[in-house]
Amino acid sequence: MIDPQRYPRLSRIAVPADLRQFPEEELTAIADELRDYLIEQVARVGGHFGAGLGVIELTVALHYLYDTPADRLVWDVGHQTYPHKILTGRRDSIHTVKQKDGVAPFPKREESEYDTFGVGHSSTSISAALGMAVALQRLDEDRNADPRKVVAVIGDGAMTAGMAFEALAHAGGMGDDGQTPEPDMLVILNDNQMSISENVGGVTRMLGRLTGSRTLNAIREGGKKLLGDKHGAPARFVRRWEEHWKGMFVPSTMFEELGFHYTGPIDGHDLPALVSTLKTLKTLKGPQLLHIVTTKGKGYELAEGDQIGYHAVSPFDPAQGMARKAGAKQPTYTDVFGDWMCDMAAADPKLMGITPAMREGSGLVRFSREYPQRYFDVAIAEQHAVTLAAGMACEGAKPVCAIYSTFLQRGYDQLVHDVAIQNLDVLFAIDRGGVVGPDGATHAGNLDLSYLRCVPNMVVMAPADENECRMMLSTGHCYEGPAAVRYPRGTGPGVPVQPGFDTLPIGKAELRRHGGPVAVLAFGAMVAAAEQAAHSLDLTLVNMRFVKPLDRALVLDLARSHSGLVTVEDNVIAGGAGSGVAELLAAEGITLPVLHLGLPDAFQHHASREQLLAEAGLDVDGIRAAVLARWPELESVGLDKPAAQSASL
Amino acid sequence: MIDPQRYPRLSRIAVPADLRQFPEEELTAIADELRDYLIEQVARVGGHFGAGLGVIELTVALHYLYDTPADRLVWDVGHQTYPHKILTGRRDSIHTVKQKDGVAPFPKREESEYDTFGVGHSSTSISAALGMAVALQRLDEDRNADPRKVVAVIGDGAMTAGMAFEALAHAGGMGDDGQTPEPDMLVILNDNQMSISENVGGVTRMLGRLTGSRTLNAIREGGKKLLGDKHGAPARFVRRWEEHWKGMFVPSTMFEELGFHYTGPIDGHDLPALVSTLKTLKTLKGPQLLHIVTTKGKGYELAEGDQIGYHAVSPFDPAQGMARKAGAKQPTYTDVFGDWMCDMAAADPKLMGITPAMREGSGLVRFSREYPQRYFDVAIAEQHAVTLAAGMACEGAKPVCAIYSTFLQRGYDQLVHDVAIQNLDVLFAIDRGGVVGPDGATHAGNLDLSYLRCVPNMVVMAPADENECRMMLSTGHCYEGPAAVRYPRGTGPGVPVQPGFDTLPIGKAELRRHGGPVAVLAFGAMVAAAEQAAHSLDLTLVNMRFVKPLDRALVLDLARSHSGLVTVEDNVIAGGAGSGVAELLAAEGITLPVLHLGLPDAFQHHASREQLLAEAGLDVDGIRAAVLARWPELESVGLDKPAAQSASL
Repeated sequence: MIDPQRYPRLSRIAVPADLRQFPEEELTAIADELRDYLIEQVARVGGHFGAGLGVIELTVALHYLYDTPADRLVWDVGHQTYPHKILTGRRDSIHTVKQKDGVAPFPKREESEYDTFGVGHSSTSISAALGMAVALQRLDEDRNADPRKVVAVIGDGAMTAGMAFEALAHAGGMGDDGQTPEPDMLVILNDNQMSISENVGGVTRMLGRLTGSRTLNAIREGGKKLLGDKHGAPARFVRRWEEHWKGMFVPSTMFEELGFHYTGPIDGHDLPALVSTLKTLKTLKGPQLLHIVTTKGKGYELAEGDQIGYHAVSPFDPAQGMARKAGAKQPTYTDVFGDWMCDMAAADPKLMGITPAMREGSGLVRFSREYPQRYFDVAIAEQHAVTLAAGMACEGAKPVCAIYSTFLQRGYDQLVHDVAIQNLDVLFAIDRGGVVGPDGATHAGNLDLSYLRCVPNMVVMAPADENECRMMLSTGHCYEGPAAVRYPRGTGPGVPVQPGFDTLPIGKAELRRHGGPVAVLAFGAMVAAAEQAAHSLDLTLVNMRFVKPLDRALVLDLARSHSGLVTVEDNVIAGGAGSGVAELLAAEGITLPVLHLGLPDAFQHHASREQLLAEAGLDVDGIRAAVLARWPELESVGLDKPAAQSASL
Repeated sequence: MIDPQRYPRLSRIAVPADLRQFPEEELTAIADELRDYLIEQVARVGGHFGAGLGVIELTVALHYLYDTPADRLVWDVGHQTYPHKILTGRRDSIHTVKQKDGVAPFPKREESEYDTFGVGHSSTSISAALGMAVALQRLDEDRNADPRKVVAVIGDGAMTAGMAFEALAHAGGMGDDGQTPEPDMLVILNDNQMSISENVGGVTRMLGRLTGSRTLNAIREGGKKLLGDKHGAPARFVRRWEEHWKGMFVPSTMFEELGFHYTGPIDGHDLPALVSTLKTLKTLKGPQLLHIVTTKGKGYELAEGDQIGYHAVSPFDPAQGMARKAGAKQPTYTDVFGDWMCDMAAADPKLMGITPAMREGSGLVRFSREYPQRYFDVAIAEQHAVTLAAGMACEGAKPVCAIYSTFLQRGYDQLVHDVAIQNLDVLFAIDRGGVVGPDGATHAGNLDLSYLRCVPNMVVMAPADENECRMMLSTGHCYEGPAAVRYPRGTGPGVPVQPGFDTLPIGKAELRRHGGPVAVLAFGAMVAAAEQAAHSLDLTLVNMRFVKPLDRALVLDLARSHSGLVTVEDNVIAGGAGSGVAELLAAEGITLPVLHLGLPDAFQHHASREQLLAEAGLDVDGIRAAVLARWPELESVGLDKPAAQSASL
């Protein structure tokens, strides 16, 4: 429970209605308590940190002035919503964030009526808020009450994604036909010049002119007074003059050209200024954009100084800051990829590396430093990332597109239309495939094998261990067509990674153990557990390696020599790798019992990766139990060693 | 063959090198011949029309000035490339366009070295061109020759899609880090104020200020002279002043803010002006944007007057124009959808209709007129379209998102992340599912059942006929969660559509005929042919109706009472509806021969829908033959009527 001595105000705020009882003069003190509480809680249990610290004042101001939850507050991405959660009923449970059955790390509609729109991927907030504004406008017409307000809060990083632009353009252009009303909505651009790492690209360039422009605010404010009546041709000229004159100093122009009324920039940590500006904006009609400037990590010096490092944290001592990570830990798959990129870049000058704003997460920090001419951070822009790679491949380059599984969904059309149809030589390095864990359903990589396997021309690989991951990357790099290596979050079984660029034959599996009468065909991250389960029952075990193309010869051979097959994958069963095996058998007219083990046809809530895999029956015990449930007779036939004691082969 | 009397110049131009032999003074005459030839040829065989007429002068200028194919010319969307194809080796075969084994309707790398990037979906050209520019810059460093040039031509309609913005922002921001060089590329914005129908939204608003601005060009050009040296702080101020001063009259500002150097607008039909401007731009470094204004259908009066009608045409008499379509034709699925939208909108004020710039193609013309307050053309912006719908659903509206199957790939992440995870009440009306035909692989809807079926919470329906399509739309509308109705291009079997809003029970199939020993489970558009095939062999036939959830009880019942199952769908077999049936059997431990019939694991070339279905064995004869190949014994058991004579049920 919150300590009322330490938090005399926050301890009295369970929901925003409580906050609204305080006089305006106390808001700054409340913000200070909220910041201290956030630091205390996140330091204790870990979680997203810097983004929340950057919007403390904004969160207080919004919940103070707007009638949430009736007014709709849409947070983009959601990294920054811990303060929002603390003010909206989750103050005393925020310490459970990201844990199984605990508070979700992102807004989640099922969790709270204050979480109006679930999120995790970036740049959806303007579209969602516009949809809400339009629906409220159309459906609430007969209400006498004040119309409900809609506010979207979006970072400058999220503004780089195309869908944010699409939404701005749609909202800004509504009403231009003289038929449809303008939407009443406020977009707050939270400009901290960061995504998870530094922002790049033209949007940053555009917003970047802010630097040093504070002294120009007075001038700008002066210019505003020219605005006057917005109607009539001379007034329009004045307005345009004003718009573009402003544009010389502040980045208003794109927003105004698209049809938004721009206000700002203002200091997002100046609570009185925020409150006063928002009070005015609340009274205005039409699409409004408020540009605020904040500092990620604000109020915790170490986080302000290392904004990337403190984006999300493990538990730490607030007085000391995060402990330096110990060296010589087991490399993650991400590390394996990052090392391979540097090694292959040294060997092949044609290799190019592309990331949509995930330099750290994708393991490309060293590559970006050692090969800056061949490193392309395209900002949060998965669509462009994929087609950029396609264009490079047209000219003989060897692009590697590093995108998390869940985010590749956003480049799906480009993968199909620009890469696969043209059979272009693009390698997709798909991190966070399968179960991801604490970030919840929005970040899960549970679908990729299904949505990739149906695409003609694709080669899809899933490594069983770290060394195989490296070999698959080399294989995909050498293969002259579209290929994907899909690997999980975190570490693997710990197989030492060999230097060099050994490749694997395309479409060849690895038979790891002979047994019978059932053969277990395991894909990628499931090989280790499946192997232990197979060993305990003395079953045949294959590391399939290729989801597409399958090792037809081996599968057909095993089908003829076994009385049943088990497929194991960390992807949904629907359309997954196992279904590919069944399709092959059906095409060959082979009728054989097949048991598909995989992820459920449901979105998994946040929990640890291990918990989720166990829940899905994809650990050693689960696999063993499922096989025995189908073939109870194996209990007596198999070696029947308890799984935990079986030797790893 | 081309008539040298009528086309004295064009008849001597087989490839651009021939064009470059002519003196500059003859270019206008060549353009006139090219326009006449295009009108003659397209009138004869049909095809995309208005867009090509709009870029005659541009096409001539580009191939005259640039060293194609060494210089890379990337056409966006590709509707407009018939003139390009005529000048690049396909003059004498352009009359085969869209026909099987004929010229492809869009650029296609396999067809010509002048087609640098295959396309069909919009807004990919800047990404692809940037990829090419970057690769040429990095990989051609040691060449002594002039660096090869890269030019992208993109319409103002395509500019509304987010990925175009992503690419502009990336290209414009390169070099800002002081490390990576600026890309040398030219983007030509072909502004005709149209997509397939009129453009809408903020981008149009932004570009729309062009109207009447021609007289301001002189002023603008005067302003340019202030530019001078771009470096140094005072010069930067001057440049910014100039940039924003220009922005008052011409829509340069967004492009310049993102980092492009803007030139224009110029008249895209003024060939001397185009040639002179392009000559200058060829010498400039860094990202350049040339804004030209053109008229879709230019030079053919009827097409200029009806730009939507003449976007693509059937054969017609150039002297007469297109014949009015005869009334009382059989309604297409698109018509069925359009009528249902109007009827349901009258019955349910919560219904909202969303289209990404496909009002005509999706059958929403009447709805847009009758319900303008509930009609949302979001421009080419599938990502936003889907999340807009999600936002509406949050507030209790009932949004219907009408998107072609192939274009829904571009909203895939939004379907998963914003709609399905939150289990929101959005109905997807997916036109052009399955085989599409003459537009080729880029427009095929062959993957949707696979990429939708793996998504938890989705209900996926495929109608067997027109009336069922209407019932499914009503079913999806009533169902309070995400649902999709996926129907094919063109007409169905001709079942009369009943008024009213009858619904179907979720997950219930329709057993259409009892027979044996094999049961045919057919999905959607395949039911008619499968039914005839089943009848000819006296097999059981089921109209499955639901791809997800399957009718488990019926499938299991049939599996127990038959010795084999056949699944038939117009989707790739990999992960498709048939695989869902096999997964169900496997989950239940039922071992039974299953034959999956569906589309191949390959991208189909352009041909008629009927030709492609027959090639895939998905017509009556093909289905019958495939079943007999698997179960030859049925030949004697079945009724054994030749398919062509079998009565339709």
